[in-house]
Amino acid sequence: MERRSLDNLFFPRAIAIIGASADPTSKGYDYLKGMMEFDFAGQLYPVNPKADKILGLEAYPRVRDIPGMIDYVISCIPAQPTIELMDDCAAKGAKTLQLYSAGFSETGEEEGRKLEEELVRKARHLGLRVIGPNCIGLHYPRGGLAFARARFSKRGGPVGSLVQSGGHAWTLVSNGSLRGLSFSKVISFGNACDLNESDFLEYLADDPETELITAYIEGIKEGQRFMSVVNKAARAKPVIMFKGGRTEAGRRAAASHTGALAGREPIWETLFHQTGVIRVGSLDELIDTTLPFIYFPKIKSPNVGIVGAGGGASVQAADACEANGLIVPPLPPELRERLKQFTPLAGSSLGNPVDTVQIWNPEHFMRTLELVAGWEKIDFLLAHAVIELAAQWQGQSILEGIIDSLLEAGNKIRKPLAVILQSFGTSQGLNMLYSIQKRFVEAKIPVYPTIGRAANAIAKFIEYQAVCS
Amino acid sequence: MERRSLDNLFFPRAIAIIGASADPTSKGYDYLKGMMEFDFAGQLYPVNPKADKILGLEAYPRVRDIPGMIDYVISCIPAQPTIELMDDCAAKGAKTLQLYSAGFSETGEEEGRKLEEELVRKARHLGLRVIGPNCIGLHYPRGGLAFARARFSKRGGPVGSLVQSGGHAWTLVSNGSLRGLSFSKVISFGNACDLNESDFLEYLADDPETELITAYIEGIKEGQRFMSVVNKAARAKPVIMFKGGRTEAGRRAAASHTGALAGREPIWETLFHQTGVIRVGSLDELIDTTLPFIYFPKIKSPNVGIVGAGGGASVQAADACEANGLIVPPLPPELRERLKQFTPLAGSSLGNPVDTVQIWNPEHFMRTLELVAGWEKIDFLLAHAVIELAAQWQGQSILEGIIDSLLEAGNKIRKPLAVILQSFGTSQGLNMLYSIQKRFVEAKIPVYPTIGRAANAIAKFIEYQAVCS
Repeated sequence: MERRSLDNLFFPRAIAIIGASADPTSKGYDYLKGMMEFDFAGQLYPVNPKADKILGLEAYPRVRDIPGMIDYVISCIPAQPTIELMDDCAAKGAKTLQLYSAGFSETGEEEGRKLEEELVRKARHLGLRVIGPNCIGLHYPRGGLAFARARFSKRGGPVGSLVQSGGHAWTLVSNGSLRGLSFSKVISFGNACDLNESDFLEYLADDPETELITAYIEGIKEGQRFMSVVNKAARAKPVIMFKGGRTEAGRRAAASHTGALAGREPIWETLFHQTGVIRVGSLDELIDTTLPFIYFPKIKSPNVGIVGAGGGASVQAADACEANGLIVPPLPPELRERLKQFTPLAGSSLGNPVDTVQIWNPEHFMRTLELVAGWEKIDFLLAHAVIELAAQWQGQSILEGIIDSLLEAGNKIRKPLAVILQSFGTSQGLNMLYSIQKRFVEAKIPVYPTIGRAANAIAKFIEYQAVCS
Repeated sequence: MERRSLDNLFFPRAIAIIGASADPTSKGYDYLKGMMEFDFAGQLYPVNPKADKILGLEAYPRVRDIPGMIDYVISCIPAQPTIELMDDCAAKGAKTLQLYSAGFSETGEEEGRKLEEELVRKARHLGLRVIGPNCIGLHYPRGGLAFARARFSKRGGPVGSLVQSGGHAWTLVSNGSLRGLSFSKVISFGNACDLNESDFLEYLADDPETELITAYIEGIKEGQRFMSVVNKAARAKPVIMFKGGRTEAGRRAAASHTGALAGREPIWETLFHQTGVIRVGSLDELIDTTLPFIYFPKIKSPNVGIVGAGGGASVQAADACEANGLIVPPLPPELRERLKQFTPLAGSSLGNPVDTVQIWNPEHFMRTLELVAGWEKIDFLLAHAVIELAAQWQGQSILEGIIDSLLEAGNKIRKPLAVILQSFGTSQGLNMLYSIQKRFVEAKIPVYPTIGRAANAIAKFIEYQAVCS
């Protein structure tokens, strides 16, 4: 019953956007333009008393002026007039009210708290479900629901996300898309005055379009229920969670951000420990950790082969892998001999990591990758390169050769491959970083900015597989 | 005596570059071009039997054909012929031999080990000091000595660096320059067969041009001496050290990179603990941590004010600061009231962190920064912004306004300010990141990519000040 009612959220036929605007810096513009760019197939009604047309659509002064029925309302107007708006919404048939509007309980002021209470009371009375307030709401690429313009990938995918913060939701989708994630449903729910984290987590746990759940949570509304929903979700699919407010200052910030009661740290530790939820400490780490779940098959043991150029970089790579619990087995003598046949000893180290000057020779680099990946003791491969070292010293075509070899290796070696792509931070390097990363993402090869971040993410993936599957 | 002899290293009058070449992908070209770009004032002699002229300079087939005296030799030829070369070098008056050449003890092979022994024996006999082999050698911007072309800043500065790995040395100077570091002397010393980490560290400890020492060390040659030199150096100036090879795999990699005996971890822990050397775990962290030492005055206590936009980002900022030992004191009611006078409550949090929609209004943003920084309980300020959130949503001019306010604040607030500048990773964002960072570097305001990295670096700086000064 609950399940079906939440399913309705994601399949509205007609959406009214209150506070829609032709000003491209307004959130009302962003929603309307977003839905259009994501090809929302139903009706879109901009509501704004000061406009006749917005983005080519007829605008209505009030909700009650809309000619047809509406089942979904997104509102960007201030807190106070939101209450009055609700009668009109219900009268037009709306079932869901998604509130970008802020100024409710999160202000910490009596007035805001009372307004939020009134909002909930009225919603229950009118049979409206509320998402938010103080959130950017739902994002469902396959269904044409967008919480922002289509600057990031419009393609739907396997990652379901529950992100209490609107800014984090936007960052996750933007940055995550560029790094190779695509999303089933992303839900930003702010103050969670009605529909809360337990409702949405339960929904994503059952959602057949969602293969993996990522979450950013600041606080919980129903402790007991959340425990049991997390348990259920983590049994159904991998759950990667970033808990905001693990310190005193963080808890205070969470309270004034979404009015959240962040809960004490030991309770969260217990929760993570007992349910097998994968804990991460930042949005970057959340994205890092999701990548192997999406791109890699099961990895049975943590034996890594490391290939790249640079002695110091290789030492740092080995340290980062072992410090994260991965194993870097030394290459056996016969494999070293085979590498020696085409690799000069000067400037190279043929252990594991393999530090090879043959990175500058596409054919030999490819052969190095194949030989290392072909060793049965290696479960997966990390390859690292610094863009400027190749492009500025050896020339652009040499960098292209390295990229092509790695892309080809991704197909040929039949073991998981992740690429660590670093830049000195020059203008040229950052530009190339962007376009090279894009090519790897298209080839479904995860890219990380440092070996440490790759090692941490993949170690979490392997640990999860060992414990939970 | 030792001091004076090392001082000579940095002030050669005539340099011969063996293996100099017109091929821009060769290291021999890189050295020659580098010295020219860095305006080396002495004589430069390219040595190459196959060329008449290189980069406009007359080339000589052999060292003995050089008309004048030489006191410094850089060689890029293979290991074996290096030995023969030494007699010629000594005959021309050379005092120092800097060897990019690899293929010595670091190969782990009997042949390489014997060659290195012979190299050392012969150097002692001929009165030559050797830097390397298997290194990129000395970099001394003020003196025109360069280990690579002038892609990075030519300006000399206060940071002395001891970097066993050539790749790390290059990365440190390249990336560090872009982030605001400038260098007195950078020394990459590879296998350290003659001059070693103790010699160079002792030199930097005494060097009046070096205000702070950063080091990447894989292994040590003289344990007892190193302990006492580190002690001396750390008493003279801040020493920030990244030890490569802290795991078993890392130690193996270090051995096959520079032939280094990495030493057991507890010994290093004791060393860091007893001497007050600041330990870091990556090159990025080394650069991060150096920045406050260069840019900040003494910070007496770890009380931070945080200003930016984004609720989730503010929670993450507060957590990152407290987790790193900083204190994020809640703003007092009177200060909140003053902020409320011009900040709408909806969409803002006026605690600490201050999450403010007024970031979009330069005048109000400036006022926010000044009010928070003006509170006597705050010792320093962190300001954070996401480039795309401003530029794509609010428009380019709004982003410019934020940058201008922060640059102005750097002058006005009279407390240390660090800026955390993030990008979703879009092409536009990365491009802007580069140019905006440049402006902050020129204004002597350190920039970090994440709050966590800023908090870690500044916490290390404050801890050092509390303990060591």
